Amino acid sequence: MKNTFGSSVAVTLFGESHGPMIGAVLDGMAPGVAVDEGFIARQLTLRRPFGDISTARVEPDRFQIVSGVFEGRTTGTPLCVLIPNVDAQSADYAPLRALARPGHADYTGFVKYHGFADWRGGGHFSGRVTAALVAVGAVAISALRARGIVIGTHIARCGGVADRAFSDTDLPAALAALNEKRFAVLDEGAGEKMRAAIAAAAAQGDSVGGMLETAVTGLPAGVGEPWFDTLEGLLAHALFSVPGIKGVEFGGGFALAEARGSGSNDAFYMDGGAVRTRTNHNGGVNGGVSNGMPLAFRCAVKPTPSVAKEQDTVDFRRGADAALTLEGRHDPAIVHRARVVVDSVSALVLCDALAQRCGTDWLGGA
Amino acid sequence: MKNTFGSSVAVTLFGESHGPMIGAVLDGMAPGVAVDEGFIARQLTLRRPFGDISTARVEPDRFQIVSGVFEGRTTGTPLCVLIPNVDAQSADYAPLRALARPGHADYTGFVKYHGFADWRGGGHFSGRVTAALVAVGAVAISALRARGIVIGTHIARCGGVADRAFSDTDLPAALAALNEKRFAVLDEGAGEKMRAAIAAAAAQGDSVGGMLETAVTGLPAGVGEPWFDTLEGLLAHALFSVPGIKGVEFGGGFALAEARGSGSNDAFYMDGGAVRTRTNHNGGVNGGVSNGMPLAFRCAVKPTPSVAKEQDTVDFRRGADAALTLEGRHDPAIVHRARVVVDSVSALVLCDALAQRCGTDWLGGA
Amino acid sequence: MKNTFGSSVAVTLFGESHGPMIGAVLDGMAPGVAVDEGFIARQLTLRRPFGDISTARVEPDRFQIVSGVFEGRTTGTPLCVLIPNVDAQSADYAPLRALARPGHADYTGFVKYHGFADWRGGGHFSGRVTAALVAVGAVAISALRARGIVIGTHIARCGGVADRAFSDTDLPAALAALNEKRFAVLDEGAGEKMRAAIAAAAAQGDSVGGMLETAVTGLPAGVGEPWFDTLEGLLAHALFSVPGIKGVEFGGGFALAEARGSGSNDAFYMDGGAVRTRTNHNGGVNGGVSNGMPLAFRCAVKPTPSVAKEQDTVDFRRGADAALTLEGRHDPAIVHRARVVVDSVSALVLCDALAQRCGTDWLGGA
Amino acid sequence: MKNTFGSSVAVTLFGESHGPMIGAVLDGMAPGVAVDEGFIARQLTLRRPFGDISTARVEPDRFQIVSGVFEGRTTGTPLCVLIPNVDAQSADYAPLRALARPGHADYTGFVKYHGFADWRGGGHFSGRVTAALVAVGAVAISALRARGIVIGTHIARCGGVADRAFSDTDLPAALAALNEKRFAVLDEGAGEKMRAAIAAAAAQGDSVGGMLETAVTGLPAGVGEPWFDTLEGLLAHALFSVPGIKGVEFGGGFALAEARGSGSNDAFYMDGGAVRTRTNHNGGVNGGVSNGMPLAFRCAVKPTPSVAKEQDTVDFRRGADAALTLEGRHDPAIVHRARVVVDSVSALVLCDALAQRCGTDWLGGA
Repeated sequence: MKNTFGSSVAVTLFGESHGPMIGAVLDGMAPGVAVDEGFIARQLTLRRPFGDISTARVEPDRFQIVSGVFEGRTTGTPLCVLIPNVDAQSADYAPLRALARPGHADYTGFVKYHGFADWRGGGHFSGRVTAALVAVGAVAISALRARGIVIGTHIARCGGVADRAFSDTDLPAALAALNEKRFAVLDEGAGEKMRAAIAAAAAQGDSVGGMLETAVTGLPAGVGEPWFDTLEGLLAHALFSVPGIKGVEFGGGFALAEARGSGSNDAFYMDGGAVRTRTNHNGGVNGGVSNGMPLAFRCAVKPTPSVAKEQDTVDFRRGADAALTLEGRHDPAIVHRARVVVDSVSALVLCDALAQRCGTDWLGGA
Repeated sequence: MKNTFGSSVAVTLFGESHGPMIGAVLDGMAPGVAVDEGFIARQLTLRRPFGDISTARVEPDRFQIVSGVFEGRTTGTPLCVLIPNVDAQSADYAPLRALARPGHADYTGFVKYHGFADWRGGGHFSGRVTAALVAVGAVAISALRARGIVIGTHIARCGGVADRAFSDTDLPAALAALNEKRFAVLDEGAGEKMRAAIAAAAAQGDSVGGMLETAVTGLPAGVGEPWFDTLEGLLAHALFSVPGIKGVEFGGGFALAEARGSGSNDAFYMDGGAVRTRTNHNGGVNGGVSNGMPLAFRCAVKPTPSVAKEQDTVDFRRGADAALTLEGRHDPAIVHRARVVVDSVSALVLCDALAQRCGTDWLGGA
Repeated sequence: MKNTFGSSVAVTLFGESHGPMIGAVLDGMAPGVAVDEGFIARQLTLRRPFGDISTARVEPDRFQIVSGVFEGRTTGTPLCVLIPNVDAQSADYAPLRALARPGHADYTGFVKYHGFADWRGGGHFSGRVTAALVAVGAVAISALRARGIVIGTHIARCGGVADRAFSDTDLPAALAALNEKRFAVLDEGAGEKMRAAIAAAAAQGDSVGGMLETAVTGLPAGVGEPWFDTLEGLLAHALFSVPGIKGVEFGGGFALAEARGSGSNDAFYMDGGAVRTRTNHNGGVNGGVSNGMPLAFRCAVKPTPSVAKEQDTVDFRRGADAALTLEGRHDPAIVHRARVVVDSVSALVLCDALAQRCGTDWLGGA
Repeated sequence: MKNTFGSSVAVTLFGESHGPMIGAVLDGMAPGVAVDEGFIARQLTLRRPFGDISTARVEPDRFQIVSGVFEGRTTGTPLCVLIPNVDAQSADYAPLRALARPGHADYTGFVKYHGFADWRGGGHFSGRVTAALVAVGAVAISALRARGIVIGTHIARCGGVADRAFSDTDLPAALAALNEKRFAVLDEGAGEKMRAAIAAAAAQGDSVGGMLETAVTGLPAGVGEPWFDTLEGLLAHALFSVPGIKGVEFGGGFALAEARGSGSNDAFYMDGGAVRTRTNHNGGVNGGVSNGMPLAFRCAVKPTPSVAKEQDTVDFRRGADAALTLEGRHDPAIVHRARVVVDSVSALVLCDALAQRCGTDWLGGA
């Protein structure tokens, strides 16, 4: 289905980095969800470059909702949001019509689209398209919150610096705090060190990667499927669309490869009338289905591939070796910007899974 | 879509651990693919418990293809394979009607299906169902091989022991060798140590996890989509169905979170007429689309949750704390058995992605 | 998606006319639906040839449910039903390996599957496959009835004879009566004349078509979508799979092409607290969404293409003109057998539409 | 999937009648298809009201393609077209906030969306949305033509007047001529009588229905699936979204219900090296799969439900009987405008079916 994802609640993306606008269509959202344009704007701000650790291209993201909202609430019919591109500088990209930036999709896009794709600024492959995901994701986040389901993500690692772990926090308070922060860390001291590391890499014409850790509270047990549409599988499917994400793990994740069963099983116990587990090595999912504990996962974000240093590459239109020095404006890190994209994508997937289980109206509270 | 996965080439699973049989329907496979029942049987053998490092339940997996094959070749219409269950011992599971095994899906299945699911042996959640995936996956593997696309997986880590990495091998030779092995390691010495570690855990009533590393050679560039149906997303979606998998990473994966862009970009160069990269930190995928390099990914497999030690849990039908000691027959590790499931799932996903790009007949060579 | 249909509740078909068995997988049905094997058997009887107006091939349809039912109720996991083929006489079909029966899919199947399809008895194109649809459809019909939703179909026209119309009946009583009848007419006198017309055609080595009229009572308002997944579109999509159906119309259907708006609008009125319409020219659907009135549609069934008279055709393997005289055993009419297939397909579609709107559990009443 | 239709080539619709704009996203179209904005504009003209037989609301349809086209050709990434609404007069609709127009979706929309939908001018249910379908359909029509596949539709019946049938024409010439006409009839004399009948109904504050007949030449054999995704089922699914369509029939359609097999089978013969049939009672489809003959189907279009006469209805917000007299501007017939929507929808479905069979690039000719 390519640029559409979801079954009951689906999002469709369109637009290119240097076209007139990008956008998204959110279909299947329950009717009656309050839409707060201020909240959408704030979410877009979280994704926007800022300070000296981001690209100089800054889009104002003056979005317009052109359908699906009436008198301040979702109608239940497709919600389309448009976001104009106003700060594209295509001239920077002219040499790239034929040169493959290492780590980018220039070459694969050329092969896949037989040379017909809009190559300026990465075209439809550009991270710019995630602004539209964030805009419709904000509606999904609002719908979930009205049902008591809260998502939050922090930068668990960046530039060799580790943030405090969710397991060391009061999770609801930590999520609330994170969702107010532009550089989302639990430990501000770690955040300062991360920004310094990003700035240091930038000063060397280089870039850094990072790791995001996400938690979701309030998700009821019983959501997800045993095969294929496991909660892990649905989330991972969508998360790997976030540019730069190269790994997704749930609960203990890769560390479980080194564990023993006696140490990694999550013992159940009754907490009042509720079934809970003492640990959460499974990240809130057993057999693909939510178990009522916080959903917990981590995403690996590779370093921004746009670095200032000269790189070896090919001219794919001529089939010849070439050297490439990127001009233009680039991010020395994207992990802090990717965080709100991860929240948005996760919200969309959870809305879909909940709508499938509970019907199209549940999220609207009608 | 729950128990069906795929768009052009789709697989549908059915069956429960202690029902009369399990099975799968493979739909959309190109007509004319040679079906070798001996190869299917051998693949099923790779998944079967063996030696002293596996459960004592051994199913003979006498499969029957009841449709979709005519005169030794796929017809292009749905291929259904049935595999009877003959060695189920439901009595072992009687106490589990209400007790949640930690790390298993008993409780989530109870919530999701409101108590109506077949709870014996995990029912439809059981790893037993993967035998059907392996059977139809064998057909997908054959179809790919006829087109020069080869998949192979080794146990990269298990019980604290590391195998040699794919990057240290001649990859085509390594894949060919692995696909003949029952305990798939590149370094037999490491394999012996792994088996010893498994046996040691078993002797203590415990279990171990592990990590699988997979490579695919021969995949053409240009397969996959920029958004949502990225090659990573499609594979991860399906891989998270393999019981026990809690993490999936491509190329450098989580290690990229610690890297710098200058060190993790893959420089392109011309190799004869072909575009190649000098490293493969991106695992053969740029922007969600294959770049012609080997596809490379790793899966984290958690320790088998069935351990002999007494565990705390709940009686979810009464809503009360309880203690659980598992009798029955269990695997002290499943990573060596999961390996062929990973190969099978990967083959099915790649057949689907190729069929979407190249049409329904390409894999059949018609 | 080919042989799988449905989003929340989906059915997957497999099997060929002369293979060992046919079957279907019903996925997404709510847990807790009572499964009555006697009712399934009775529904299969309605589809089976009978008397002197049907083919002499009579399959006993000894079905087996191999998954998805536990202690008499649906589990919520995939329900697979298998039906062995025991009365196939492939020798009758030997000349057909290369001769296209006019009106059948031999030639299109040859082209589509490049000569690899099982050509015996029509292979996977055979009406035989509908037995599996009827078996799983019976479960869907049961689930709907438990929610007060009743489907019934009668032979509105056959062999030039018209049955009474639904509009002249007490609809609930008419549906109840029809669902007990093997040759489903409202007016037994008309039914006798239809059977005589069928027999007359058979005596001349010929066949007749017919028209089925279906009504559904108890469907709540608000089911279906404004675009694409209209209730009409979903039903028509599935109904055109029923072999021989070449037209589907809702409410007034093609007669509306000749009408005026003043005469074909359905005036609304309050009936107690319920909104109803005085007429039902729209067949219970406005703008793709159910309006609470009975759903009403008709299907045109073409005459059985297998006639005894010699016919002109081609040998598609040699590319030459040929003459064909069908031996074998054939139906002089299928409209009376297609009726239960239409009911089954309709039930499956409605279960899917309801599950999407109301969630996965609504039909189970959990 | 609601407002998205298609598997390999998919279209997503959004927008409401009185919102700022409507639009569509076309995803999966092959890269390299020439996009002629003049042709799109002309197709939109065919849908636009004209003369005295249409509503007085005339939208200029100044569309904008905001993505997916680069240097005059499709890129292969999503093509989004936006069409502003500039002539909406919402005041006309104010009384309709609570009054159900008979034959319209006001009441079903109210129930489905719990009163949150935009009710002005029918909101998302409005025929206005079809302008977006026509715009993206024009791209699909262009892509098919470049491959020799031509679609054409004429008004077979309207206001009691019949046009000449396709079977009486030289089909390629007839399609070419129709595609240049604004009021698409084969016999201009019949067209004049139809327009007179429409005007007569309009003078009486009434409306008329009609029937469209469509033919497609050049479609290769082997497209479509035996079950569920039959060519008939795919087309009908989408066609029932066209507002007012209440019946779809292929080939002989409902007339086949009265026929005998000997008279309705299509005898095959060799025509040079090509397999053809002497008649086309099956409308170019056998067993759900195209047979190489022209695809032929008819759609019944009900009379426009907006009539000037006073009608009985209900106030659905208060639950009370009411009387309704429509002011506003309405079409006394839509069949002549629906024709280009039918062409557009058909083209989109065929592009999807061809892309699935032949791969994503076939239509682009790359």
